[in-house]
Amino acid sequence: MRAVVMHAPGDVRVENVADTEIIEPTDAVIRVTAACICGSDLWPYRGIEEVDGPARMGHEYIGVVERVGPAVRDIGVGDFVVGSFVASDNTCEICEAGFQSRCVHQVMMGAIGTQAEYARIPHADGTLVKVPGEPTEAQARSLLAASDVLGTGWFAAVAAEAGPGKTVAVVGDGAVGLLGILAAKRLGAERIIAMSRHADRQALARRFGATDVVEERGEAGVARVRELTGGYGAHSTIEAVGTQESMMQAIHSTRPGGHVGYVGVAHGVELDGMDLFFSTVSLLGGPAPVRRFLPELVGLIMSGEIDPGAVFDLTLPIEEAAEGYRAMDERRATKVLLTL
Amino acid sequence: MRAVVMHAPGDVRVENVADTEIIEPTDAVIRVTAACICGSDLWPYRGIEEVDGPARMGHEYIGVVERVGPAVRDIGVGDFVVGSFVASDNTCEICEAGFQSRCVHQVMMGAIGTQAEYARIPHADGTLVKVPGEPTEAQARSLLAASDVLGTGWFAAVAAEAGPGKTVAVVGDGAVGLLGILAAKRLGAERIIAMSRHADRQALARRFGATDVVEERGEAGVARVRELTGGYGAHSTIEAVGTQESMMQAIHSTRPGGHVGYVGVAHGVELDGMDLFFSTVSLLGGPAPVRRFLPELVGLIMSGEIDPGAVFDLTLPIEEAAEGYRAMDERRATKVLLTL
Repeated sequence: MRAVVMHAPGDVRVENVADTEIIEPTDAVIRVTAACICGSDLWPYRGIEEVDGPARMGHEYIGVVERVGPAVRDIGVGDFVVGSFVASDNTCEICEAGFQSRCVHQVMMGAIGTQAEYARIPHADGTLVKVPGEPTEAQARSLLAASDVLGTGWFAAVAAEAGPGKTVAVVGDGAVGLLGILAAKRLGAERIIAMSRHADRQALARRFGATDVVEERGEAGVARVRELTGGYGAHSTIEAVGTQESMMQAIHSTRPGGHVGYVGVAHGVELDGMDLFFSTVSLLGGPAPVRRFLPELVGLIMSGEIDPGAVFDLTLPIEEAAEGYRAMDERRATKVLLTL
Repeated sequence: MRAVVMHAPGDVRVENVADTEIIEPTDAVIRVTAACICGSDLWPYRGIEEVDGPARMGHEYIGVVERVGPAVRDIGVGDFVVGSFVASDNTCEICEAGFQSRCVHQVMMGAIGTQAEYARIPHADGTLVKVPGEPTEAQARSLLAASDVLGTGWFAAVAAEAGPGKTVAVVGDGAVGLLGILAAKRLGAERIIAMSRHADRQALARRFGATDVVEERGEAGVARVRELTGGYGAHSTIEAVGTQESMMQAIHSTRPGGHVGYVGVAHGVELDGMDLFFSTVSLLGGPAPVRRFLPELVGLIMSGEIDPGAVFDLTLPIEEAAEGYRAMDERRATKVLLTL
């Protein structure tokens, strides 16, 4: 089958690889109908994270179930499904507490690679959510967003305790930050401050619910957020980048007693204990437990209440994956959808 | 009047200093009936924090109101009062959200110094809580504990979301850690793991509600907590030391989705972003908003439901303050009460 393989930073190819098989009795194999390129795929592409030999890529997916292992009970052949970027049993104590991304039996889908014609899904019953009916093309795009960027933005907004009466600041205007805005709006936030300096992303931010845009970054951005919030800072801040500057910007933009939800995969971040101590904010982040939110998100998408698929601004056949990576790396695209 | 003054690390003296006056119209002056030495006073005593010239010491206090400024409404001369180590207006948005220790008009009582015959209390109406009736000597000791160590341990337990069904780990067996145990018990925690290697403190930990004691530290302590919790880690962890080792011990002892309440003043702590990201725990800490809890704590103490004063294991007249500092530094005492 055809699959995307990264050989080295900047070197992405589409190749023939071995067919996908059931390995564990709880596995399913799906025919991937769409996959996408994630902001986190750019870390190895840019050489910031090591590329471990020729590596299969991709962890977001929607598709149709082709085969199931003998222990799979709830998911059946022919089901249209979406799952999270972390496969989880959804039954351990950690999953039951809503942290499926840290399931004791977790499997990172990135290690399997979903930018491919077929993908093995471990713990199929725990990982996959069945989509009712046949999604339209627009709904399919939104379901694909739910697999990671929407679910991750949603988790960040929940972790930041976005809600009625709250002012939410959002650091990062990539797909996750933008969908964090959508989530904050949906959760009832009163005011949403998008921190962005790109006109096209500002427009999408406003469409998703941002009420204010701050172009300044770093401590200047912090000062502007404080100015907009009577000197107090935001109640809730979403961090969706993962750098030292963005983490500091998020923590310092938040008022004492406020909450920071951080989902940008931390690269080179060091938090000074004394600074954090006197910030007196709640910090919650990490790989998002997307599975917790998927049933609700699928419902909102299929009923047309949210349209997260709007973050995809470039669609390419999988054979042109290399161009997709280039476009995201060069910021010509916010989020690339790969068709199969 | 007589007051404790630190001249240099290890050099604590009791001296005559200028009398205490009302400065702001919202001030009160109290006659201090008891003060104490805090674990955080040991940082400058040990030279880990700089001593800024001859410095007045002390931030915990109970006493009787002597004088009030013209703008003080709720507190009157003759009231027996207790207050937090941070003076706060208790009316700003940060105070109203329960984070009085970060009040926009905060005054650190340590900069005033309460190890003295009299103390000026800024924002008297916002800072002080009136004690109903005349406390017994035992109640007075407990009220003094409420001023910082009990209030701080309580905040840590609340920040760690200790409660029914939860397993709580407590890193640090000083007064704050021990009273964090008392708080966790009172909040309904099912199981409380005290991390301590001192027999006397273990005994007090058990008296306050600890169900298990772990003597190992660092990663060995983490392994033991995981062993005691089915491999998952604690739901809630209280950090009450403030070192790199204790913070790592607290974070790594906590299960994904769990909560860490950290109240040890961070010294030389650096949190690695990637480690924190994949820990996927909630972190909340900082200077405890003791004022939030004081009315409730005063009630529990005066009704005899809690006995936090048991942490004081050495009582000295203020003239012997230097010996009190030595005893705490050498770990001959957990918490020293100074009488006036």
